[in-house]
Amino acid sequence: MSSNENQELSEVSVIGLGQMGARLAQAFLAAGHRTTVWNRTAAKADALVAQGAVGAATPAEAVAASRLVVVCLPDYDTVHDLLVPAGEHLAGRVLVNLTSGTPEAARQLAGWADGQGAGYLDGAAMSGTRLVGRAEALFVFSGSAQAFATHRAVLASLGNPVHLGTDPALASLYDTALFGLAWGALAGFYHAVALVGTEGVDPTVFAAVATGHMPFVTSLMSDHARQIEDGRYPDDDGTVEVHAAAMDHLVQASGVQGLRTDVPEVVKALLVRAGAGGHGSDGIASVVEAIRKGGQDV
Amino acid sequence: MSSNENQELSEVSVIGLGQMGARLAQAFLAAGHRTTVWNRTAAKADALVAQGAVGAATPAEAVAASRLVVVCLPDYDTVHDLLVPAGEHLAGRVLVNLTSGTPEAARQLAGWADGQGAGYLDGAAMSGTRLVGRAEALFVFSGSAQAFATHRAVLASLGNPVHLGTDPALASLYDTALFGLAWGALAGFYHAVALVGTEGVDPTVFAAVATGHMPFVTSLMSDHARQIEDGRYPDDDGTVEVHAAAMDHLVQASGVQGLRTDVPEVVKALLVRAGAGGHGSDGIASVVEAIRKGGQDV
Ligand SMILES: NC(=O)c1ccc[n+]([C@@H]2O[C@H](COP(=O)([O-])OP(=O)(O)OC[C@H]3O[C@@H](n4cnc5c(N)ncnc54)[C@H](OP(=O)(O)O)[C@@H]3O)[C@@H](O)[C@H]2O)c1
Ligand SMILES: NC(=O)c1ccc[n+]([C@@H]2O[C@H](COP(=O)([O-])OP(=O)(O)OC[C@H]3O[C@@H](n4cnc5c(N)ncnc54)[C@H](OP(=O)(O)O)[C@@H]3O)[C@@H](O)[C@H]2O)c1
Repeated sequence: MSSNENQELSEVSVIGLGQMGARLAQAFLAAGHRTTVWNRTAAKADALVAQGAVGAATPAEAVAASRLVVVCLPDYDTVHDLLVPAGEHLAGRVLVNLTSGTPEAARQLAGWADGQGAGYLDGAAMSGTRLVGRAEALFVFSGSAQAFATHRAVLASLGNPVHLGTDPALASLYDTALFGLAWGALAGFYHAVALVGTEGVDPTVFAAVATGHMPFVTSLMSDHARQIEDGRYPDDDGTVEVHAAAMDHLVQASGVQGLRTDVPEVVKALLVRAGAGGHGSDGIASVVEAIRKGGQDV
Repeated sequence: MSSNENQELSEVSVIGLGQMGARLAQAFLAAGHRTTVWNRTAAKADALVAQGAVGAATPAEAVAASRLVVVCLPDYDTVHDLLVPAGEHLAGRVLVNLTSGTPEAARQLAGWADGQGAGYLDGAAMSGTRLVGRAEALFVFSGSAQAFATHRAVLASLGNPVHLGTDPALASLYDTALFGLAWGALAGFYHAVALVGTEGVDPTVFAAVATGHMPFVTSLMSDHARQIEDGRYPDDDGTVEVHAAAMDHLVQASGVQGLRTDVPEVVKALLVRAGAGGHGSDGIASVVEAIRKGGQDV
């Protein structure tokens, strides 16, 4: 390649400038990377050109413009439809797909990209749009380790890029799993806020104490992951039976205060199921066995 | 009081040396405080005397021995039964009750202690027994602000002591609410571990990423507490509708992988209920209204 061609290349192209894609492009620009953009509705691309981006007339032009091509669209079908006409330009490039989807869709698109001679990374933005560009924003990627190593520094413009492994399905799998984790915590939090609220405690007053407690809860996750891996559940953090009784207390207290009890009830059901499965005097991490196939019915 | 009497006083007495009480006494000793102990089964007291504690022959003797009297027993009835014969010694002392119980029981015991001329603090150990004595161990207290201020330094031997307010019921209320919060997070975590496990991801490998994500989730709690306080739910972190669709995806994906789906299903039900209540295009913190009395049925 001549140095002239090299001059014309951008560091990264972004295709799809919706809520997330626009933030991605801004983060690349903010980090000082020459960034080419394309969006179906041109006005969104124009807004980024005004911020220093290079506008592309077609997806193919955007693909041709950079060795690193980031797409962020509503679904994989749209990604496929937009990229097929640009396929010939993909050879030698790395396609990073930050569109949400299923593990199977990720594997299929990875196979297609491979057929075009492109490296593939599937990715997921775990921290919403607000934090994009800040070190706290977790971005998980899976697929080609070489592609990740090559472009790690540029991807770090988005936040904290973590490579999960070479199976392109992993990013989608973690995306779904981490979404569930976040929601477990949020559902517990909203329920707790509602409960203390019945006694007049302000949400922000409770949150100050609650957020201070979360590092401890997080440390339990590390400990319990080790226990689950070993399949041994010591009762250092209390037994399933003791926790089931305490959870029943939360169900009762919530009901008395006029709250919906479905959140604590589902946890109680897990604990009761774990107990019925023979884990009553085991540690609480044994509850994972009441989630896996074959757990006891209550 | 003569300096002779003063000499004989301990800094703190601990009544009830079960799993938790013994750890409390050890933490006081480790911090260099002269500590008097009493337990129904004498062997547990003897073990602490061997570690430097002073043994008391009766609960009354233990109460008389210190200005700060900590009790940790299975329930409030036991606390009451043990302290009534020691009531005359309570005048001028501060009773700190780390027994788990209900808000009403805490208010009753506070009233009784007041009648004996004692200051009262209700408390709850939020971080189990393992961390007692370390700065990360959260201990919440409520009741007399003066009693807390007087004994704060000694109580800090146990961990991080937080005074929630003068209503003695608050510690029990927070105890229950924080327990529910912790379990929401843990249920979400166990479900996530089970899900990634179906694709062969090790629990500890997932936990390394998941625990790195928790500070972000925790930061949402602070943000959403403010929103709930204002009763306004901006959609910066996504709308109820978008999250409901993503949660439905988690339910489906879990089912396909042969997992119990009750944990994601209860979250989906919250989101659907919030949507039915008119919050579909509001931010997700509006889900709190689907937990409060009067929320819409699905
Ligand atoms: N927003 C978030 O907080 C967030 C967080 C994590 C992950 N994600 C994921 O990021 C992806 C994008 O989400 P978003 O929030 O940015 O979506 P969005 O704001 O709705 O933007 C969608 C983008 O896709 C384009 N598009 C839609 N259909 C198209 C088509 N047929 N042909 C060409 N372009 C088309 C839109 O172009 P027009 O401008 O022409 O409509 C727009 O640029 C999704 O997979 C989402 O799950 C989003
Ligand atoms: N363990 C934890 O992780 C933990 C965490 C947070 C809160 N807590 C709370 O701390 C409190 C104590 O729990 P624990 O785990 O320490 O319980 P535990 O190990 O079962 O100990 C119970 C203690 O109470 C004494 N006791 C029981 N009945 C008695 C009676 N009728 N008269 C006199 N003494 C009696 C026992 O004395 P003997 O030795 O003679 O049996 C023992 O010292 C509970 O309210 C619990 O909810 C515990």
